[in-house]
Amino acid sequence: MIEIVAGVDIGGTNTVVGLVTKNGDLLAEKTFSTRNHNHFNNFINTLSQEINTLLNQVGGDYIIMGVGIGAPNGSYGMGAIVDAPNLEWKGTLPICKEITSRLSIPAVVTNDANAAALGEMLFGGAVGMKDFIVITLGTGLGSGIVANGNLVIGHDGFAGEFGHTIVEINGRACGCGNKGCLETYASATGIRRTISMLLAQSNQPSIFRSLVPEKLSAKMISDAATNQDPIALEAFEYTGRILGIKLAEAVTIFSPEAIFLFGGLAKAGNLIIDPTKRYMEEYMFPIFRNKVKLLPSALEGKNAAVLGAAALIWKEINV
Amino acid sequence: MIEIVAGVDIGGTNTVVGLVTKNGDLLAEKTFSTRNHNHFNNFINTLSQEINTLLNQVGGDYIIMGVGIGAPNGSYGMGAIVDAPNLEWKGTLPICKEITSRLSIPAVVTNDANAAALGEMLFGGAVGMKDFIVITLGTGLGSGIVANGNLVIGHDGFAGEFGHTIVEINGRACGCGNKGCLETYASATGIRRTISMLLAQSNQPSIFRSLVPEKLSAKMISDAATNQDPIALEAFEYTGRILGIKLAEAVTIFSPEAIFLFGGLAKAGNLIIDPTKRYMEEYMFPIFRNKVKLLPSALEGKNAAVLGAAALIWKEINV
Repeated sequence: MIEIVAGVDIGGTNTVVGLVTKNGDLLAEKTFSTRNHNHFNNFINTLSQEINTLLNQVGGDYIIMGVGIGAPNGSYGMGAIVDAPNLEWKGTLPICKEITSRLSIPAVVTNDANAAALGEMLFGGAVGMKDFIVITLGTGLGSGIVANGNLVIGHDGFAGEFGHTIVEINGRACGCGNKGCLETYASATGIRRTISMLLAQSNQPSIFRSLVPEKLSAKMISDAATNQDPIALEAFEYTGRILGIKLAEAVTIFSPEAIFLFGGLAKAGNLIIDPTKRYMEEYMFPIFRNKVKLLPSALEGKNAAVLGAAALIWKEINV
Repeated sequence: MIEIVAGVDIGGTNTVVGLVTKNGDLLAEKTFSTRNHNHFNNFINTLSQEINTLLNQVGGDYIIMGVGIGAPNGSYGMGAIVDAPNLEWKGTLPICKEITSRLSIPAVVTNDANAAALGEMLFGGAVGMKDFIVITLGTGLGSGIVANGNLVIGHDGFAGEFGHTIVEINGRACGCGNKGCLETYASATGIRRTISMLLAQSNQPSIFRSLVPEKLSAKMISDAATNQDPIALEAFEYTGRILGIKLAEAVTIFSPEAIFLFGGLAKAGNLIIDPTKRYMEEYMFPIFRNKVKLLPSALEGKNAAVLGAAALIWKEINV
């Protein structure tokens, strides 16, 4: 029997679950919608079933040893997800206990962006780096920060909420209850809001004038930009400017060797990286200028958060 | 012979030098102006003379083993001060080599705010804390950040330049070449600029209408506020709002147990702490609200940076 674990990346829109060996090889993977589970227990049921389906798929040579989970506002210490702005279930969700009660194996949870940072450090572009930042651009904006070779977890275990730094006082309403948070601008949801803003401000023709706003995905916006839709192009410029300015601030605070972009909006590649890099350098504290790499996740396609969550549970069970 | 070291805190306005025992006892201290040394070598000459004067003062029972220095843009790795916006000498200043050549003892340098954080951790209010931030409000604004029990130094050694995060795009011109940096608002120099701004906007009477702007000190402004000068009171409110918002962002990123305020402007006590705390809580990411202590340095009067710089050289010479 070959020992494996499940790595889970819970996002506001989709959840990805994968079976992972001790070397970080991904044997099988499944994506399903995080939404449409009106009760958290229903979500846990779906997740448990998907893990069992994947296990059947890879066959009888494997035994599952544990489940590692990356989730928004995931608290390692509490084994729970706590008041995540981008999930529909509120309060404290004891996800580790629920998984263990269904599958009878240990489970650990951490912040989704911390999981992505662990994955990048162990298997991706940050191998050998001691100071770097992973920014996840999904439904929200998460950050996993590594300083002196260790994840910055903070006193409460909730450090790294870079998506809730403030871009504009009294700016866009955020799911956290505040206004003007970075993730209301720089995320898959944020760029969709920017499209609506630009449709109001501009009178240029755009495919988005005939599409339902809440159905827009980051992929549709990047496809439109590739087709030279002027509103889509301007939306990437606008998003990159805000993200670039905030990343310049992050560099000034952390002096990282590199910043990695990961998640749905990061898949737009140079459409988002180029303006972000340009504005980051423009607003950078001079001694850091042209020193910090801005890179796509080296695990894109594989999913750094799934691999990182898997690495976390491997470390925990220590087999 | 009792072994001692010199701890040095170089600020944009004043330099403080103290003789410190291995237990952190301060035997003697002297403050002199950092300015009016047109060449860096003249400053080093003054500093060396002041150390010798202090040694004569404490008498013949003591032997000096090394010099620890906290300075703006001090690089531990390079043993130098590099392009510090608030010092009049530019370029790379090899301060350790210069001190050693004059006094024939080892010297180390680090960022002044990092030295203050070390002092706070070893001898002050942060004893036993693993995650905290020290903000120095002097000529500029420095930050020493401790995460997981270690100073955040960064890939380049220049992490912690929180004073150069951006408050307002195209805001006040900063010594670093950028605009709108936090330290142009929240520092002894920043509140002086705020006084000028308020004198323009308001028509209320104020002592500052009859004083020379560049001669205003943080002490004069806090004395005026204590005497209910309306412009001085509003300047503290304005400064506290900006500092509070940026500290809310720092909490969101680091999840510290406490934030300590240190330096000239911090001596204003509740005049600066109260509005800063109020706005910090108002703009805080909700899960962190009412959890993070905002405190004056527990070493105020002694000088955390002098003690921290001393601790650093004690560690280095390891006697």
